[in-house]
Amino acid sequence: MELGMIGLGRMGANMAQRLHLGGIAVTGFDPGQEARERLAATGVATAATLEALVQALPAPRTLWLMVPAGAVDPLLEQLLPLLSPGDLVVDGGNSWYRDSLRRAQRCRQAQVAFIDCGTSGGVWGLQEGYCLMLGGEEEAMARLRPALEALAPAADRGWAHVGPTGAGHFCKMVHNGIEYGMMQAYAEGFALMQKKQEFALDLAQVAEVWRHGSVVRSWLLDLGADALRRNPQLEGIAPYVQDSGEGRWTVSEAIELDVPAPVITLSLLERLRSRESNSFADRMLAQMRSGFGGHAVKAANDGE
Amino acid sequence: MELGMIGLGRMGANMAQRLHLGGIAVTGFDPGQEARERLAATGVATAATLEALVQALPAPRTLWLMVPAGAVDPLLEQLLPLLSPGDLVVDGGNSWYRDSLRRAQRCRQAQVAFIDCGTSGGVWGLQEGYCLMLGGEEEAMARLRPALEALAPAADRGWAHVGPTGAGHFCKMVHNGIEYGMMQAYAEGFALMQKKQEFALDLAQVAEVWRHGSVVRSWLLDLGADALRRNPQLEGIAPYVQDSGEGRWTVSEAIELDVPAPVITLSLLERLRSRESNSFADRMLAQMRSGFGGHAVKAANDGE
Amino acid sequence: MELGMIGLGRMGANMAQRLHLGGIAVTGFDPGQEARERLAATGVATAATLEALVQALPAPRTLWLMVPAGAVDPLLEQLLPLLSPGDLVVDGGNSWYRDSLRRAQRCRQAQVAFIDCGTSGGVWGLQEGYCLMLGGEEEAMARLRPALEALAPAADRGWAHVGPTGAGHFCKMVHNGIEYGMMQAYAEGFALMQKKQEFALDLAQVAEVWRHGSVVRSWLLDLGADALRRNPQLEGIAPYVQDSGEGRWTVSEAIELDVPAPVITLSLLERLRSRESNSFADRMLAQMRSGFGGHAVKAANDGE
Amino acid sequence: MELGMIGLGRMGANMAQRLHLGGIAVTGFDPGQEARERLAATGVATAATLEALVQALPAPRTLWLMVPAGAVDPLLEQLLPLLSPGDLVVDGGNSWYRDSLRRAQRCRQAQVAFIDCGTSGGVWGLQEGYCLMLGGEEEAMARLRPALEALAPAADRGWAHVGPTGAGHFCKMVHNGIEYGMMQAYAEGFALMQKKQEFALDLAQVAEVWRHGSVVRSWLLDLGADALRRNPQLEGIAPYVQDSGEGRWTVSEAIELDVPAPVITLSLLERLRSRESNSFADRMLAQMRSGFGGHAVKAANDGE
Repeated sequence: MELGMIGLGRMGANMAQRLHLGGIAVTGFDPGQEARERLAATGVATAATLEALVQALPAPRTLWLMVPAGAVDPLLEQLLPLLSPGDLVVDGGNSWYRDSLRRAQRCRQAQVAFIDCGTSGGVWGLQEGYCLMLGGEEEAMARLRPALEALAPAADRGWAHVGPTGAGHFCKMVHNGIEYGMMQAYAEGFALMQKKQEFALDLAQVAEVWRHGSVVRSWLLDLGADALRRNPQLEGIAPYVQDSGEGRWTVSEAIELDVPAPVITLSLLERLRSRESNSFADRMLAQMRSGFGGHAVKAANDGE
Repeated sequence: MELGMIGLGRMGANMAQRLHLGGIAVTGFDPGQEARERLAATGVATAATLEALVQALPAPRTLWLMVPAGAVDPLLEQLLPLLSPGDLVVDGGNSWYRDSLRRAQRCRQAQVAFIDCGTSGGVWGLQEGYCLMLGGEEEAMARLRPALEALAPAADRGWAHVGPTGAGHFCKMVHNGIEYGMMQAYAEGFALMQKKQEFALDLAQVAEVWRHGSVVRSWLLDLGADALRRNPQLEGIAPYVQDSGEGRWTVSEAIELDVPAPVITLSLLERLRSRESNSFADRMLAQMRSGFGGHAVKAANDGE
Repeated sequence: MELGMIGLGRMGANMAQRLHLGGIAVTGFDPGQEARERLAATGVATAATLEALVQALPAPRTLWLMVPAGAVDPLLEQLLPLLSPGDLVVDGGNSWYRDSLRRAQRCRQAQVAFIDCGTSGGVWGLQEGYCLMLGGEEEAMARLRPALEALAPAADRGWAHVGPTGAGHFCKMVHNGIEYGMMQAYAEGFALMQKKQEFALDLAQVAEVWRHGSVVRSWLLDLGADALRRNPQLEGIAPYVQDSGEGRWTVSEAIELDVPAPVITLSLLERLRSRESNSFADRMLAQMRSGFGGHAVKAANDGE
Repeated sequence: MELGMIGLGRMGANMAQRLHLGGIAVTGFDPGQEARERLAATGVATAATLEALVQALPAPRTLWLMVPAGAVDPLLEQLLPLLSPGDLVVDGGNSWYRDSLRRAQRCRQAQVAFIDCGTSGGVWGLQEGYCLMLGGEEEAMARLRPALEALAPAADRGWAHVGPTGAGHFCKMVHNGIEYGMMQAYAEGFALMQKKQEFALDLAQVAEVWRHGSVVRSWLLDLGADALRRNPQLEGIAPYVQDSGEGRWTVSEAIELDVPAPVITLSLLERLRSRESNSFADRMLAQMRSGFGGHAVKAANDGE
């Protein structure tokens, strides 16, 4: 099987390599020369332009997009005119599932098949394999199968055709919502242990022991344990947590479907909170307390 | 009716004055000379010692305690030996209702009646009257009635005998829990309007218009509107919110009684959050994101 | 001043009456004959068709829409062709502010002015006056002023031009988000008191006493106290709480603007939760507990 | 090494077997004859009375308690008079760490050593090994080591001496708080996927694919996937979730230490919520909405 990988950032480059190692004939493309050269250095073929990439692939072609959510639409507009009826586009990035529904429609007009693929695996996927949740039609899925078997941790597991178009990115969205909740649960627990100074707990030791036999063992805990081993007090790290879209989409979808999801929702809000400085809400609270009860307000430039 | 007011801080001194203005013969006591002199300057009698206060009152005596929650037990131990069977002690402060149950028992051993009185009114009570929620026995309540009618906004409203011993402070605890939730709701709403820069909203104007005809009008909103009028951007105020015990007790009680109270609970947690610096939980989250996805961590000394 | 009121449901009919009583020459229209007749019976003029309504008004006309959010677009499409340059449309309903931005644009194409007006007042507005938050241009606002002075609790308060187009409905959206949080805070507090059976609290009495002198006094509390007086155990009422859109919009807007609003958000989720039966999440939790710890699962048809 | 296991319920009996299989000379005791016989049938020695158990063990003795949290104090009062200076008591159950601090003190008076051991492993521990978090003194820990190596998944991992007395149960408490949050995150995510009917997702398939290569893979997910495979719609299970104490303690401890833990806290509240019927808070909300806006209230006996 031959496949073109578009987008050679951290995820795309690693996936191209894993496909290559798995016996898939991959050609990679990225507008950045440096990204192309990094991939070429691993022995994977690259193309210098989108046109060259398309021409390098035999029809019917398979193009796997691994670009930021915001870059998919402009890329599709460039790509579709170069493709032929029967070609297949896979969006393996973190797109909103509703965008995927729209894009599948757009591709259908060009008689190009479309698969939305939610991809989990992070920086570990190259070595451990990727978890792939796929939405689309059966026929396209069958064509893609050799690539999926190469990307997943094993040929028969770690990838699944979960439903029609959109279902792949929908499951990935929920997956990441769950991830937010799990991470927040661990973070709160470790923060509580860290604050219990009288026990002088060694958090790395606690995380390590939980990895064996405990019901909270998980991959996230493995990562947390590793982080605490290398930096037990998490020094030098700002308490500033980004979010990447899926959490917001999950919260929004849950509300739209009347599904209460308080823990996933709060996990997102805690990330927003982490990035706030000089919260207006908190100042308003401090001021209202003062207005009613005469409680002193802390001045803005007071130390702690 | 005669009454001894013990504790002449902001609340006690104002209540003594309102009682005095309402025709009750009050004598005030506070260990601090300055506090005594401030009250004396308003025309209210004071006593220089606890012993002098007790002697100044005709039996059966009525002593109203208006001291911090932590000061009630030591004060009672000092006071009870000076009292006689049939005397009445009222705890009008923010005590935990379970402490009041214990203290009533302690007083009963000395044949002294005990009333727990939850008091709301803040710095406005002197002028507007206090809201009083009382727990205890009917007979003691009847004796206290003239004082209650003087303290409340009107003789027939703003005070109530809500139940047996403990019930007064229990209601006050819940009252403050509700207050936390209401304040947080306002604070979040104003923060949202403040952030919507494209509308350049005048928050003081919005708060003011809501005071008339709107379903969110309330005393807290009046105070908020006033604060925003005087300081529209809440400048110079730290985003740092204290809590005073009742919120914690409410959360704890709700859990013990299996009553989910998520909004009151979150309101308390937001106050804890406002006082955090360098949150360990947030650093743990940032580090775990990095460990899995390779996302960059913000360094601790980065600016925003 | 003359004004056409379109939509004679609970809100529109009452507002037409208040305008009429305030000396504004109102003509009301509603597609439902019964609604028209009900208004006519109060002495307010009505028109049988939209065309008749428009013709009955002198140019430049003022049309006030008081229809459900979903009905505004179709109504505008019907109405605009009947209007003339210089006419003014006011949307006083609960529209999403982003729809109002779009509709103002649509009206501008027809040279018709547009004002978005967030309206609070409920069934009480006829008697107490309405709280009105308005977005739009100064000139249109000046023309509308007599109507605003008649609708508001007093000529000089209870209405405000808060900003450009959209700002009126934006403020109303936040207003209702705050209302959700306040109501939830009260509901949780009363539920906690109701569960504390050993104190046998009379919730109506507690609500009543809080109305006087307490920091939690508010209009919502007045309504709550009234409800508890008439039905102290809230018998016959299902624990089923609707929501009407503004809460969802507030939550969504807060997330989009990176403003953490946990209490408003949780208040919405609690309403979703109240409407759930046979929660899949709870069944999943029960099953996972069983799978790990061997804890018995309650069978679906068990009684409590 | 010889050891007496007191409490032969699900956990204690399995642990006795694992110790036995690991070469530790265990004698088990339980007041219930049936429990003793079940253990005896697996080849582990049992004693018919507490006295017989103590006499069967060589001094200095090691007694491991595996009884419900509420049974520890009465058991200790029975047990301590039978012990001799130098004996060791291990509490491996789910005790509150503050009780363990008190009990260690009580044992010290009898010159008996005390170790608090948080134990995770559930019904899987017999086969997979237990995760053990231990608090106490180094010397006692050294004596216990052979038992710990037999109980843990491997001699050198899955057990740790995490700190002084109390630290073991403290870590277990936090561990379970985290477990609550993780389980709630999964439950919410699966509930959201279940509600998205247009994708007709096979939840067992999704859970299974996530087990391989995904960042949310964990033991809890393994258990969830297994449950969904056997009962894809979770039929016959009531949406009713128990909690066992550790969640409450974690929430309470976090508040006391000023550590905001919103996700763990909400996870507990969701369990309380799952067990509510006819929520007073929801009825209060429904009634307040009606009182202000005239919104219809759903009658208590209405179907959905």
